Parts: sequence; structure tokens; C-alpha cells
Amino acid sequence: MKIAISGKGGVGKTLLASLLANTFAELGYSVIAIDADPDANLAATLGFPDSEKVTPISEMKELIEERTETRPGQAGLYFKINPRVDDIPEKYSLKHNGIRLLVMGAIKKGGAGCYCPENALLAALLAHLLIARDEVVILDMAAGIEHLGRGTAKAVDKLIVVVEPSRASIETAYRIAKLAKDIGLENIAIVGNKVHSQSEREFITSSVTGFEFLGFMSYDQAIVEADLANLPILDASQQIIAEARDIFRALLPSA
Amino acid sequence: MKIAISGKGGVGKTLLASLLANTFAELGYSVIAIDADPDANLAATLGFPDSEKVTPISEMKELIEERTETRPGQAGLYFKINPRVDDIPEKYSLKHNGIRLLVMGAIKKGGAGCYCPENALLAALLAHLLIARDEVVILDMAAGIEHLGRGTAKAVDKLIVVVEPSRASIETAYRIAKLAKDIGLENIAIVGNKVHSQSEREFITSSVTGFEFLGFMSYDQAIVEADLANLPILDASQQIIAEARDIFRALLPSA
Repeated sequence: MKIAISGKGGVGKTLLASLLANTFAELGYSVIAIDADPDANLAATLGFPDSEKVTPISEMKELIEERTETRPGQAGLYFKINPRVDDIPEKYSLKHNGIRLLVMGAIKKGGAGCYCPENALLAALLAHLLIARDEVVILDMAAGIEHLGRGTAKAVDKLIVVVEPSRASIETAYRIAKLAKDIGLENIAIVGNKVHSQSEREFITSSVTGFEFLGFMSYDQAIVEADLANLPILDASQQIIAEARDIFRALLPSA
Repeated sequence: MKIAISGKGGVGKTLLASLLANTFAELGYSVIAIDADPDANLAATLGFPDSEKVTPISEMKELIEERTETRPGQAGLYFKINPRVDDIPEKYSLKHNGIRLLVMGAIKKGGAGCYCPENALLAALLAHLLIARDEVVILDMAAGIEHLGRGTAKAVDKLIVVVEPSRASIETAYRIAKLAKDIGLENIAIVGNKVHSQSEREFITSSVTGFEFLGFMSYDQAIVEADLANLPILDASQQIIAEARDIFRALLPSA
């Protein structure tokens, strides 16, 4: 199963990605978690030791040069747009608690007129992970789907857009859904996070209509406190863990 | 005065940008507010009518083609890298409550090896706004400073990095500060937002050392409720308005 997670900044994409990765891993699935949001720290949330020292693939200049045959930063030269990547997940990932982690780093936005060797390598790697691998892949993305192109989008089984009780996060959800549909990604589902009350739940369900709805995660002050005290976030709230299991069951009703 | 605002997604960059723009405008300054974060809606927060209908400059294909002499999406062609932009603020901005607003739209990340006509126009426009204009300019950026290059960074009087009580937002603040210093932008200051308690204030002040500290904005449920009810956010909390005035005074002690 290939799951991509997006949504406005700050809504809790990384928390959901971590909880789902843990849930899959606990049930015996092989899991590759991909941090594709430079504004997040999936390694830290997953409890990887020394998470701040992880080198993102986009900064591995020698790897990029070796595979694309072009040094990053050298614009205007030719480079291999289909570099070899199939060995990268094993060689350049970290492993902790049964989860393999790849940190992509800052991807220069692709699309019209923007090409560079870093992007070529990251795009090829992502395509390989989504299309050619058997593992469960959980992709924690920035507030957009710029990592996905038409080819890779088709390989995504579910794009989960996380929202919180705020109009801006709902607007972002619709913008993401439109971009996703434009590249043929129709399997979009919503998760509501940071809900304090029944009225906030109702705000969310009445605001995002026309999408599959996977469930809610409650606002829990214990998560905030664990974070500030630098304690493992994923152990801080039994309620959130239970809610993530419900979301997992909504994703995979037969599991 | 030229102010750039950055920080992790969801920390309240747009709220602070709006409050500061309003404060400057109320005191008689000419203000240009720039929405450079596709994951935000500065127009809506500033109370612009029909804010969802604003066309970002990055999507004005004819303007981009006219000025850069290249159609967006046509990679590999030559285009003018110094297009004329000095008339754009007047012709393509909206005005409301004394604030001129420019919505930049999704900027393809610049830097090494990535060039395209949209970026050329946006970069030239931003350089013009920061370097050649007399107005107060308030730039609401995404979680990074990819809109600023060495030339434009020097024109920024203050980069305000907004943080909230979370380790991830502090990590992002340090990452942004490093990127800023790399391009010669040293005037960095911190604002703490969404604080619930004295212990959260202390978490922030003890976590961001070595930077100028401009003040705190409290978490106020009235802002959340105004947002969900689609009421003007900037009128919802007298406390936040007063705190923004204190931040303004810390920015401009002589004003």
C-alpha cells in the first residue's frame, strides 16, 4: 500500500504519518517512511536517535553527481534523467523500530521549465519507491503534491489530506485535491486533526464534502507537553494511538 | 521599512503579517503586503472581499509572457531575466483599508539549476518592491526564505521568524536563520505565537537564544471561533491587537 499525506503546514501530517507507520510496522508490514517535507522532522517524531544529524538525499552531492553524472548547481548541462536508484533505499535509509526512513530534503519544485540534477534523482527515487517496491510506503509531504507527477500519482493508493479546525486548512485541502485530480490522483481522503469539541468536528465534516472521510484525531495537551519536554511523542497519548488505529482500519477495512 | 516574515507552517505568519500591516496603515504609513506563501491566504486574513478570487501573479500567463518574452512552461528557451516590473504593484495589486496587496502565487523554488520565466518575473518584482519602493513592505513567506536572494536579502530590514510552543517550529526557526545568514541577512528577530502559559513562554525564550526577541502573541480561542464562523479575524481579539502593537513598538522604538 502506498499512502501520501499532505495538508496545510502545522496540521499534523508528520504525526499522522508516524502513527500510521508505527501501526503498519506493529502488524508486521515492511514499512518505508519518506520525509519529503523540509519543514518537518519525521525522524524525530518516529523516535529515531540523533534525528537532527540525518543527511537528506538532496544534500548528498556525490551521490547526485555519481547517479545523474552532473554536479548539483551546474545549470544548463545535460544530465541523466533516469538515474539508477534501486539500491538507494537500502544504502541510504535509516532503520528504527522496524521502519525504514528516507529523508528526501528540499526538493526544488518541479514542473514547467525547472530542471536540475537533484530533482531528477529525487523524482526517480520516489517513482521507484511508489511503483516498484512491495513495502508499505508512507510519504509525508509538504503542503502540496509537487513531488508527484502523472506517473507516480497513479501508484498512490490513497492521498490523505489532513485538516484542522481552521478555514485556511480546509482551503488548502481543496487546493491540494484539485492539483491531485489534475494529475489523475482521485483516491483522496480526509483526516481531521486537533479537534477540541463536537462543534469543531462538525465544522470539519460540513466543510469537506465529496471526499472519503477516514476519521478524527483529538487535540491532546499531552502531545504538546511531551514535545516540549523532548519525550517520545508517539507514546504520549493513548487516545491518539487508538484514533490512529481507527484511521488505519478505515484505510484497510480487511486488515 | 521592509519586513519579511517566515516560520514553520501553521505558526501564525499570516496573522502577524496582517496585524503589522494594519498597525502600520492605521498610523498613516503606506503599506504593501505581499502574500508569497501559496499555503496561506493573506487576503482573507486582511479582510479583502472575494479573497478566494484573487489571481496570483504566477498564474498571469499573459503578463509573464509579455514581460519575460517567454511563455510559462517553455523550458530551455531564453527569456528576459530582468523584465520590467515597476508598474506591476499599481496595476496588479488590490487595495483595502489602506493596504495594497500583491499575491505572488506558487514560486518554483529558485536556486541552483532551476530557472523559468515565472520565477524571473517574481524575483524581479520582489527585488523592485524591497529595493526601489518607499512604502512599508510586509512579506508573508512560506517556511523558508527561498524568495530572497543575496541582492534582495540586504534590503530586508528585519526577518521575523514566528515560532509556537513546539520543538519543530524552533528547529525550523534555526534552519531559516541559517539560510538567512548564508545570504547575508543578519537582522533576524523572533516572535512567539499561540502561547497558553508562562511555561510555554519560558520554553520559547529558553529555546531561541542569540536572536532579538520582539514579543509574544497569546493563544486566543476567540481567533479560532471567528475563523470558523467566517468573521473578521483581526477584530476578534483585543488582546492580540494589543500584543501586535507591542511587537510594532519593539520593531520601531522611535515610532
